[in-house]
Amino acid sequence: MGGDHGPSVAVEAVLASIKRHADLKVLLVGERKELLSLLPPDYPSDRITLVDAPDYVRMDDKPSFALRHRTQSSMAISLQIVREARAQACVSAGNTGALMALGRSILKTPSGIDRPAIIRRIPSTRGRCYVLDLGANVDCTAEHLFQFAILGSLMVEVVEQKKYPRVALVNVGKEDIKGSEQVRLASHMLEASPALNYVGYIEGDEIFKDVADVVVCDGFVGNVALKTAEGVIAMLSGLIGDAFKRSLYTRILGFLARPVLRRFQNLLDPSTHNGAIFVGLNGIVVKSHGAATAKGFARAIDQGVRSARLGLPERINARLDDLYL
Amino acid sequence: MGGDHGPSVAVEAVLASIKRHADLKVLLVGERKELLSLLPPDYPSDRITLVDAPDYVRMDDKPSFALRHRTQSSMAISLQIVREARAQACVSAGNTGALMALGRSILKTPSGIDRPAIIRRIPSTRGRCYVLDLGANVDCTAEHLFQFAILGSLMVEVVEQKKYPRVALVNVGKEDIKGSEQVRLASHMLEASPALNYVGYIEGDEIFKDVADVVVCDGFVGNVALKTAEGVIAMLSGLIGDAFKRSLYTRILGFLARPVLRRFQNLLDPSTHNGAIFVGLNGIVVKSHGAATAKGFARAIDQGVRSARLGLPERINARLDDLYL
Repeated sequence: MGGDHGPSVAVEAVLASIKRHADLKVLLVGERKELLSLLPPDYPSDRITLVDAPDYVRMDDKPSFALRHRTQSSMAISLQIVREARAQACVSAGNTGALMALGRSILKTPSGIDRPAIIRRIPSTRGRCYVLDLGANVDCTAEHLFQFAILGSLMVEVVEQKKYPRVALVNVGKEDIKGSEQVRLASHMLEASPALNYVGYIEGDEIFKDVADVVVCDGFVGNVALKTAEGVIAMLSGLIGDAFKRSLYTRILGFLARPVLRRFQNLLDPSTHNGAIFVGLNGIVVKSHGAATAKGFARAIDQGVRSARLGLPERINARLDDLYL
Repeated sequence: MGGDHGPSVAVEAVLASIKRHADLKVLLVGERKELLSLLPPDYPSDRITLVDAPDYVRMDDKPSFALRHRTQSSMAISLQIVREARAQACVSAGNTGALMALGRSILKTPSGIDRPAIIRRIPSTRGRCYVLDLGANVDCTAEHLFQFAILGSLMVEVVEQKKYPRVALVNVGKEDIKGSEQVRLASHMLEASPALNYVGYIEGDEIFKDVADVVVCDGFVGNVALKTAEGVIAMLSGLIGDAFKRSLYTRILGFLARPVLRRFQNLLDPSTHNGAIFVGLNGIVVKSHGAATAKGFARAIDQGVRSARLGLPERINARLDDLYL
């Protein structure tokens, strides 16, 4: 029921996703009447099950309010379904703060982890890296940052089958004298940890330079950095288009170069990278961008499918016990 | 003496700058011998004056250490020269934290301002906006953010001759429930201020959408956001080049499109936008990027020249008294 475009986006994405994934079954949780009106009359009821939810979380609900008063919301019921193992993953485009609070309350965090974090793979020309937290926790202690590093490291181990992923901490400079107190303290904790392959501080521009597999920061910094990157990409895409529109000659060039430019622009299309994961919960929760289209929402469903196939939280939790022993 | 490439970059930039600005005179502060070895034998000694400094600030000096022990450094002496009005502006590629600490100690902040901030114009396709703080203050209270908003607003008034610039505060969402406590408190202070045209929260991607003239955030967030943007730009520039190298046909297209692509890449070249200003000091201090080339350092000198011609700090301070009355 969440997101900027309401449930129509989710319904359209679900219809596309069950075609992509032959073994996928979906429980659509929300206002039954509205969902029915959005589904075609001949929708495959053996693959899509409607679950009625009398309430839904509003985009401006405070997390504490959602926790207390949205217990019958589509979000809370979805998470409850995951907890009862009636579904392997929950995908939502709703209120991030509420999803964090309800996820933590209903699914719980594994022992040793205080708070879940939002993690996403960031596309780059060389390699790939996972950044967390992207907005679930705006105020973080050094201990939280340390736990994010462990979660991110385990996530990359499981998802990318990469041993000893390189972990870096975002700071405003390389020197140990720089940064806030939490960041410096977290760095010392990471240095002292034998379980992690900590490579030190990195600055914002290095996220795209394949110097780390896991990039750790607090949710405020991560969210602003990611959105700034999105803003630059959107601006540059437009700028390239305009550059080729300046004269008849450049228009012809632009027309001829269309396949080249399109490949470039597809790579940057945010909808192809949609779907961030709440890591550090006893269950899979995928957050779709609120502004995602049906195509983007389907990518978030893909993330849920992939994570379920990998058995992501179980495998992270099993390794977590190793690390904390 | 600072920056990644040492004084050669500054010397080369100075030689280019005195050609660009017919009325510019430069005091080159540093190790006299080294500077002399970098200057051509026939350098115009009526335009360039060497000022010997026995010491210099190291890139890994703590601000507190620089404050106490680098009193005879090129940085401290340069700032002293500005204080004594023997120069109208100081340009440095040195240690940012030390420049902040020494600047504050030698030049002082005007009354009503606790800390200077680093501000820069961010290029965007539509309009332009000024972002502060970009790294001088990693931990900020709501009061500091409020003061940055005032400084940024006055800076845009003076530099862009724009009345009532739109001021926005960086947050992780639009809703008033979001963000850290300092940010929410700063927002309430800004809302209550009749002197400012406060337009509310913005997210990272909106920095490039001409929704604000002044964008306020703490130095950690601002620094990471700016560097992330730089990283994306560098990555995309490379990506476009590669896209046109995939086949003979695309190579020919790329060759024909070179003027178009070059215009685009020039626009993104970080050296054309080098030079951030310390706003909130009784004097002009320009910070050049540590990695800047001579071309980039010359842009930072341009910033100093322009600010001196505008009488930037005097005009900001005069308006500051109005605002605080």
